[in-house]
Amino acid sequence: MPLISSESRGVFVISATPFTDNGNLDLPSLERVTDFYIEKGADGLTLLGMMGEAPKLSAEESRQVVRTAIARANELPVIVGVSAPGLAALSDLAAFSMDAGAAGVMIAPPTGLETNEQIIAYFKNAVEALGTDIPVVLQDFPLSTRVHISVATLGTIIETCPSIVMLKHEDWPGLEKVTALRAAEANGRRRISILCGNGGMFLPEEMGRGADGAMTGFGYPEMMRDVVALAASGDMARAQDIFDAYLPMVRYEQQPGIGLAMRKHVLHKRGAIGSPVLRKPGAGLSAEAVAEVDRLMARLDRRLAELS
Amino acid sequence: MPLISSESRGVFVISATPFTDNGNLDLPSLERVTDFYIEKGADGLTLLGMMGEAPKLSAEESRQVVRTAIARANELPVIVGVSAPGLAALSDLAAFSMDAGAAGVMIAPPTGLETNEQIIAYFKNAVEALGTDIPVVLQDFPLSTRVHISVATLGTIIETCPSIVMLKHEDWPGLEKVTALRAAEANGRRRISILCGNGGMFLPEEMGRGADGAMTGFGYPEMMRDVVALAASGDMARAQDIFDAYLPMVRYEQQPGIGLAMRKHVLHKRGAIGSPVLRKPGAGLSAEAVAEVDRLMARLDRRLAELS
Amino acid sequence: MPLISSESRGVFVISATPFTDNGNLDLPSLERVTDFYIEKGADGLTLLGMMGEAPKLSAEESRQVVRTAIARANELPVIVGVSAPGLAALSDLAAFSMDAGAAGVMIAPPTGLETNEQIIAYFKNAVEALGTDIPVVLQDFPLSTRVHISVATLGTIIETCPSIVMLKHEDWPGLEKVTALRAAEANGRRRISILCGNGGMFLPEEMGRGADGAMTGFGYPEMMRDVVALAASGDMARAQDIFDAYLPMVRYEQQPGIGLAMRKHVLHKRGAIGSPVLRKPGAGLSAEAVAEVDRLMARLDRRLAELS
Amino acid sequence: MPLISSESRGVFVISATPFTDNGNLDLPSLERVTDFYIEKGADGLTLLGMMGEAPKLSAEESRQVVRTAIARANELPVIVGVSAPGLAALSDLAAFSMDAGAAGVMIAPPTGLETNEQIIAYFKNAVEALGTDIPVVLQDFPLSTRVHISVATLGTIIETCPSIVMLKHEDWPGLEKVTALRAAEANGRRRISILCGNGGMFLPEEMGRGADGAMTGFGYPEMMRDVVALAASGDMARAQDIFDAYLPMVRYEQQPGIGLAMRKHVLHKRGAIGSPVLRKPGAGLSAEAVAEVDRLMARLDRRLAELS
Repeated sequence: MPLISSESRGVFVISATPFTDNGNLDLPSLERVTDFYIEKGADGLTLLGMMGEAPKLSAEESRQVVRTAIARANELPVIVGVSAPGLAALSDLAAFSMDAGAAGVMIAPPTGLETNEQIIAYFKNAVEALGTDIPVVLQDFPLSTRVHISVATLGTIIETCPSIVMLKHEDWPGLEKVTALRAAEANGRRRISILCGNGGMFLPEEMGRGADGAMTGFGYPEMMRDVVALAASGDMARAQDIFDAYLPMVRYEQQPGIGLAMRKHVLHKRGAIGSPVLRKPGAGLSAEAVAEVDRLMARLDRRLAELS
Repeated sequence: MPLISSESRGVFVISATPFTDNGNLDLPSLERVTDFYIEKGADGLTLLGMMGEAPKLSAEESRQVVRTAIARANELPVIVGVSAPGLAALSDLAAFSMDAGAAGVMIAPPTGLETNEQIIAYFKNAVEALGTDIPVVLQDFPLSTRVHISVATLGTIIETCPSIVMLKHEDWPGLEKVTALRAAEANGRRRISILCGNGGMFLPEEMGRGADGAMTGFGYPEMMRDVVALAASGDMARAQDIFDAYLPMVRYEQQPGIGLAMRKHVLHKRGAIGSPVLRKPGAGLSAEAVAEVDRLMARLDRRLAELS
Repeated sequence: MPLISSESRGVFVISATPFTDNGNLDLPSLERVTDFYIEKGADGLTLLGMMGEAPKLSAEESRQVVRTAIARANELPVIVGVSAPGLAALSDLAAFSMDAGAAGVMIAPPTGLETNEQIIAYFKNAVEALGTDIPVVLQDFPLSTRVHISVATLGTIIETCPSIVMLKHEDWPGLEKVTALRAAEANGRRRISILCGNGGMFLPEEMGRGADGAMTGFGYPEMMRDVVALAASGDMARAQDIFDAYLPMVRYEQQPGIGLAMRKHVLHKRGAIGSPVLRKPGAGLSAEAVAEVDRLMARLDRRLAELS
Repeated sequence: MPLISSESRGVFVISATPFTDNGNLDLPSLERVTDFYIEKGADGLTLLGMMGEAPKLSAEESRQVVRTAIARANELPVIVGVSAPGLAALSDLAAFSMDAGAAGVMIAPPTGLETNEQIIAYFKNAVEALGTDIPVVLQDFPLSTRVHISVATLGTIIETCPSIVMLKHEDWPGLEKVTALRAAEANGRRRISILCGNGGMFLPEEMGRGADGAMTGFGYPEMMRDVVALAASGDMARAQDIFDAYLPMVRYEQQPGIGLAMRKHVLHKRGAIGSPVLRKPGAGLSAEAVAEVDRLMARLDRRLAELS
């Protein structure tokens, strides 16, 4: 199985976790959505992302998701989110995932870390608990974790933890952070891969600042594929045209809570999963929201036709 | 002077606070930007909004801003943000503002209120301290205040505080809240005016849910004027076309901190203020960000030309 | 095995989780400290409390702790903390614990619940996920969870979730909450058991307000036994005398982080566990802190001699 | 007037802000409580502390408090809390206070600073705004400000801001921080004065770690005077005896919100202020709480008699 590295690029789609209408884990839909992501241009997948429904799974269900998706993804690299309140649970899931063929694991800092020093110590301990042969993605998502990692702190972590090879960048605002990281590398610090989250809201600018791609779960992975490829080829104008067409939906999906329901609604309408339901607790879309999303989907089709 | 009421509609622009290059309050620019907002379609203005630079002003500077802008706005209603850690300071500024001709005052709950009961008590005390003859806008902005007001809590406040006539809606996600408020009114609760913030990110949907307009400081007030007017006239398709054209900029401006610098950059480029500087502490845009914004401004002009 | 009920009273000691010097789970010490707690007057035990080291355990280690301590506690009721980010993990551990002979489970609300309505919905969902035959302790500890449960919210939860039979009271300040709960019961609401946490810092006053006992992990359980028994018998003066003697230590142990290290130091010095080490991440006491604690232990012995 | 310096020692009492029964500022009581503090051993006073009722004052009332207390304190150094959301308001009040004869000003970081770098920048900007001739106390109180200042961050601030001459230490837990600060000074960093807050809860240990005294508003300043003097003279056993006698009250007063009401109740019973009321919003003590406090006061008198 391939491992992720500091040279990894492209689009890693954060996979939805499909459930049946009555809330059971739906492994056939997980296989189907895996195929869908690959067909729409994913270069890799990420499982058990923290903003999805991973925390709603039992430990055994988490392992089923990991096994099933990795088997289905075939040769595509698969990253597994292993964030946990304690290091024992974190390294247990990491070991299981790597044994199952994962390409690396992703760790977000736990809520409650307050100072730069505490954040640095956390990642040092986490990487030590994992063993240094497992490639790690650091997820920098302060809106959710309430942990704020400064540019200098991130630099120290990169310098002291060689197995951290990738940043899932979703600080907000975060464009200057990408620029600062790349500037430090120009001055000799080792390179890391930077894939961008935040639902893709700033993807063209992030690519312009030096990001390597996207890692988010937007229901139209082809947007990310096209924007990343066009930006990499230097055609920023066309990249922004494509991006702008999808932006009304990207924006709608960025709403916490509702956004996940909207994403599953889109995936369901596109035939990628069998049911749009969220496992409890977690509400679906209201009738008004369904109408809004359906209208945006129809507008998107028209706009893409104009652009092609 | 007109007062705001539960029937107020349209676009209230949150005014920027202009400073000279060396950080002094720039009252001539304040007059100029007031003219600019009116020319671009503002139905009213809001001064000393919490996300702007109001907290950087001394008490005397705040009073100068209030006096100057109200005098310049002529017959347009002007709302003054009076949020303060304590009720004495809050009611002092409110009394001054109303004497100066304000149309109402805006209050956000202070950080630290935790339960529904504490929030309800706060607004009861605040309104009592003001006296019930001053019309009040309740600013519901949890991302900034960290105070989360449920639909039921908002209902109780509306029922117990008759002088609260308007909601500055910027919960996120918040569309269901607008729907729930209007549903309660359909069942007999008194009406309040709902103007939407969040930089306008969800303005078409908010209008569709029953909002009365916008209250935010986006550097192109004409977008809000057009979207609100088109939505009010029932032409949602055209409203969304206009909105989508501006959305790449709306999105960029929504970034905390950077967004304000971008807004001032746009206002400066459009000739509305003499200098784009933020008073300390507060950084300007990096060269990369200036290039990004300028590119978005140029793209906007082209897209508007296509649409006209 | 006995189950806890709304009539449960006395002292439930939150058990330490002993590790060997190199950080492995120390089950023989867990048996020894269980004996120690019983010998010093515990009426019950609580395992896997959230402020201890439970989150540092792997899933399998958690199950070992539950099995070992319940077996050793013999006929004493044992409560298991099952708080988890998601309901599937929570109900899995609860089912395992009840099968192993637990007397009930304890649930703290997860960080991120903001409004009264969200808190009420969480407990409704959690109790539904457990099934209504498992007795539940609601842990009300806002300093740690950042979830603030008002008296009215607690009332609604008690009325809608009959299987919640006990409150682990550690709001701060919280004396008025105990009084309000008992007043509501005097007006006809069903009784719940109230055991007090916060390290015992307000135990005499809490007993005076109507609490049924203590649930905390203070290294001298005999203090809690004596204060609870004396207060229950009406001898508040003697209860307070005993309490005051221990208060310098109670206060020292109340320090977050350091407090747990101090507690293990005391348990180790008293022969109840084999090693005072905390599992990583988690520092021990500095030399200065050891000297301070040892001085307080010596002073305590002298003061108790004066009082006897 | 004397200025505070890095050599300041002793007890600075945080002054209560007295109001009449109907909530008006009570300047005669402010003079009386100033006399009381001096009589009970204060070496200095601190006005407008953030946990008191300072934020409830209007700007003009704040100035009245500053003028009145400084005049009454005669030759005693008086520190004025000038924390404010923005630097203009902060430096306005600082300039007024120094003109009125203050010995220095106290600044707590505003809620919302997240990283070490942001905290350091804030104090650099604040000190620059004040001018470097005003001696500054840095208030380190994370439980209230939600700003966590690491030992290294504090070191950088001390090194870059020479006018910060004193630390109001109320991190919790914080004993190791005192030790680390003194260790850095032993290695050559400039000395700062360390006065301890947290209601005095750890005063004996803090003195043992190298603190210079206390700065808190406990209703029995003579406790702080005696403990600080005895510890400074090396008689730690007697210092701890005195401390332990007051500890049940110190502990009760440490409750947020209720603690302030209790403090005013004690000051009123001791004849130092005319009314125990808190200005709105802010509740008084319940009947149960009054009974508890009165019982603790009576027990204190007996215990002090035993000790003398």
